[in-house]
Amino acid sequence: MEPIKIVIAGPRGRMGREALELIHKTEHFILVGAVDRTNEGKKISDIEGLPPLDAVIFTDLERCLQEVNADVLLDLTTPEIGRAHIKIAIQYGVRPVVGTTGFTQDDLKELELLVEDKKLGAIIAPNFAVGAILMMKFSQMAAKYFQDIEIIELHHDQKLDAPSGTGIKTAELIAQVRDSKKQGHPNEYEHIEGARGAEYDGIRLHSVRLPGLVAHQEVLFGGEGQTLTIRHDSYNRASFMSGVKLAIDTVMKIDLLVYGLENILE
Amino acid sequence: MEPIKIVIAGPRGRMGREALELIHKTEHFILVGAVDRTNEGKKISDIEGLPPLDAVIFTDLERCLQEVNADVLLDLTTPEIGRAHIKIAIQYGVRPVVGTTGFTQDDLKELELLVEDKKLGAIIAPNFAVGAILMMKFSQMAAKYFQDIEIIELHHDQKLDAPSGTGIKTAELIAQVRDSKKQGHPNEYEHIEGARGAEYDGIRLHSVRLPGLVAHQEVLFGGEGQTLTIRHDSYNRASFMSGVKLAIDTVMKIDLLVYGLENILE
Amino acid sequence: MEPIKIVIAGPRGRMGREALELIHKTEHFILVGAVDRTNEGKKISDIEGLPPLDAVIFTDLERCLQEVNADVLLDLTTPEIGRAHIKIAIQYGVRPVVGTTGFTQDDLKELELLVEDKKLGAIIAPNFAVGAILMMKFSQMAAKYFQDIEIIELHHDQKLDAPSGTGIKTAELIAQVRDSKKQGHPNEYEHIEGARGAEYDGIRLHSVRLPGLVAHQEVLFGGEGQTLTIRHDSYNRASFMSGVKLAIDTVMKIDLLVYGLENILE
Amino acid sequence: MEPIKIVIAGPRGRMGREALELIHKTEHFILVGAVDRTNEGKKISDIEGLPPLDAVIFTDLERCLQEVNADVLLDLTTPEIGRAHIKIAIQYGVRPVVGTTGFTQDDLKELELLVEDKKLGAIIAPNFAVGAILMMKFSQMAAKYFQDIEIIELHHDQKLDAPSGTGIKTAELIAQVRDSKKQGHPNEYEHIEGARGAEYDGIRLHSVRLPGLVAHQEVLFGGEGQTLTIRHDSYNRASFMSGVKLAIDTVMKIDLLVYGLENILE
Repeated sequence: MEPIKIVIAGPRGRMGREALELIHKTEHFILVGAVDRTNEGKKISDIEGLPPLDAVIFTDLERCLQEVNADVLLDLTTPEIGRAHIKIAIQYGVRPVVGTTGFTQDDLKELELLVEDKKLGAIIAPNFAVGAILMMKFSQMAAKYFQDIEIIELHHDQKLDAPSGTGIKTAELIAQVRDSKKQGHPNEYEHIEGARGAEYDGIRLHSVRLPGLVAHQEVLFGGEGQTLTIRHDSYNRASFMSGVKLAIDTVMKIDLLVYGLENILE
Repeated sequence: MEPIKIVIAGPRGRMGREALELIHKTEHFILVGAVDRTNEGKKISDIEGLPPLDAVIFTDLERCLQEVNADVLLDLTTPEIGRAHIKIAIQYGVRPVVGTTGFTQDDLKELELLVEDKKLGAIIAPNFAVGAILMMKFSQMAAKYFQDIEIIELHHDQKLDAPSGTGIKTAELIAQVRDSKKQGHPNEYEHIEGARGAEYDGIRLHSVRLPGLVAHQEVLFGGEGQTLTIRHDSYNRASFMSGVKLAIDTVMKIDLLVYGLENILE
Repeated sequence: MEPIKIVIAGPRGRMGREALELIHKTEHFILVGAVDRTNEGKKISDIEGLPPLDAVIFTDLERCLQEVNADVLLDLTTPEIGRAHIKIAIQYGVRPVVGTTGFTQDDLKELELLVEDKKLGAIIAPNFAVGAILMMKFSQMAAKYFQDIEIIELHHDQKLDAPSGTGIKTAELIAQVRDSKKQGHPNEYEHIEGARGAEYDGIRLHSVRLPGLVAHQEVLFGGEGQTLTIRHDSYNRASFMSGVKLAIDTVMKIDLLVYGLENILE
Repeated sequence: MEPIKIVIAGPRGRMGREALELIHKTEHFILVGAVDRTNEGKKISDIEGLPPLDAVIFTDLERCLQEVNADVLLDLTTPEIGRAHIKIAIQYGVRPVVGTTGFTQDDLKELELLVEDKKLGAIIAPNFAVGAILMMKFSQMAAKYFQDIEIIELHHDQKLDAPSGTGIKTAELIAQVRDSKKQGHPNEYEHIEGARGAEYDGIRLHSVRLPGLVAHQEVLFGGEGQTLTIRHDSYNRASFMSGVKLAIDTVMKIDLLVYGLENILE
């Protein structure tokens, strides 16, 4: 495989650290530079806890891209910084893989034009967990054949909000392809309020919160005499890295802007 | 094994039909009589759809017990009839196994005295599903070591009420041994109402209703770094029969009143 | 919806009975005839246990199609009879939906030409369980992203063979898209032979056999920090009927031969 | 709660580190000393990565117990060292909680006498995972009512041996209370060798190995029309700590030797 020369932005964040490990152990990935708020001029290997990569750290992306020859910018910073970095990368002919959120429809249209103009690939992925994305994709497909659907998402008890973002996203994706439907018995009633869960377009969502759990979701489809269940278990942050790898490999082969990893999974 | 001579009350009900099959195929069970609202003088084998047992049908329990020599009355009728039948059986020295509900504390005290007086065993079991009873028993035991507990019960979408009786019973049994506790994050909030389910003494209950499902429940216990799950799946009414068999075998060996199958499971 | 006029072959078999119920309760399905080995001239409603449909029974398909005006032949007979029936149906311009196996590659080529010639749709589906087919389809898709895969299939303990046909079919479909791979630790060893299950192209298959179970399968995909699980539970034969309905509706809209329901699911 | 003064042996091992965290955050636990192969005279807080506890480290247990006033010795070392330490602790009137294996029947008899003589409590626990122990205990109880049992244990693919120790231990415990039984259909056969798993006294064991998994086991019980499933998921080493805490609290209240945490769970 042709080596891919990568600049990483945000190397010390939680995602950044995992990404450095990924680059370190992937044979055809080469780290050629890093962008950090601090540590100008140091090497990655100088920072305690980071892998022994000798790429140099810059505090400014533009200067970094002037000095090193890069194929891909992997940006794992914040929404504001990510929005600025993506344009700089395109301007320098470097393909961006951006893991931040916060892009508006207008942003995306502008970026599409820039990318088209440069004939470059670019990927923006708010979620890199391939397993979770497949779960959502399969759920949307199954909803065409099974219209009765409930979602159970299970997280550790330090999570504040319910349902989870992925739970709601799954329901939204299903609602796009399924006619709205009141599920359960038309006359059903609750002995204790909340038993039947939250409702989104007829789909029921149940949020379990327990110590010990990490991040899990199952989507249940019921039909006469059968059920189909799609479940994703995420045990730790490493689960995001297969998506990062896939995005980097894919961005080299495309010449358009892709928003959402689901659009590069076949 | 010593044969056990059985009179059944309610042979044509859904439970009754299963029980006849059980008696038919259990070598040491002998059906010696049946009590039905109708069909006086006919044999079980005369009724379409019932197994080829030649026990005679009576429309009155007392007359039946005068004419046949029985060890056990298996009563699968209604609460009112069951309450009358149990006393008649005891009076005739026949050990009752009663599958109906509706006994008050006063009823039970009265029956205890009657049974004690006759030195007879008697079992009243509102639920004969051994698997479900074990699930509840184990849940109560586990709750001493894991105080964070959520219950997910799943039924077909023709079920009217939520949570299920077994779900609520499980929460009650847990609440007896666990200090009341607010679960989840102290500041947790719902994007959509009902996501966190019903609450019973801090325990969360979630009711899933889908076509295809039969009757299922899982009890999840969370602790640091681990979860314990106890699940029961009931696929059809035959699931009750192992409990009926156990009750009939046990009632021959005891000389007191037992209420609830959980009290004869070790 | 335009009504669809159906002739059923094999109305008294287990699948046939379910299909009659399906036709009975589906508004736009009309039963116009039936083909059975016996009962010539009787109506479906004359046969005990069948729904009150007054379509007439023929013992010969050809004569049936001469006398009634049908859109679709639903064949739920045996491989031999099915192979003969499908050609007769096409000859009479009736679209076949055939649920039997045993077609060779040569058979299929011949049928393709016949169908093309008549500009008719035809569907041969060895498996009508939509949920099981989706499970296999999704498994094949997921295998592109997760190469470590194990299959657990669970059936009642009266099943003779292991792994199940669906289990092996799933492994075959995965093997088509995934490079062969030795899974598990390179130096793994068994304390007791068979612990690691059966192997098919590196994929491990485990067959659980227990009383109480019906027909279940789960396919587990493992990746760094995450697992994805796709599970199908079949509780009774009714689970096949959504596939039969889909096939009948679809065969009216196509003008080619489709082998395998997976090819009409999007 | 009365404070409990603890000496830990093996503070830098993986279990030891977790135990230090446990002691640090448990209000009524006080660390009064530590025994390590090295670091004589340093404090726990002097060692990088350990919590800020100022207990002093000794390289010899006997000297440690002469200098500090301890209630409990928590030993998380190796079998050889553990066997020596437990006797020293008893001799000094300190209650041992030992997490190592390798004790023979003779060892245990000797220790029983020593403990009896001193009227001290002592606990030896080869496994501190309360959830796993409850799973085994419940499985043994359920096996009295459901004789058809299969065990599925699932671990990461770096695990060398199959079935897991816990899987085999579970089968052993079940075999103690259940008559040996050939499960499955008497004429069952395998298309691919190993499909039906490993066999232990008729019980079938299936070992799944996938990247992403941590340590999981489910025990399935089948009966007519129903199944009962008991599942334990261990996500990280913290899962052992509730068992360590329970053992320390319990050892203060007993005056005999207990082998196996299952014997202090009610």
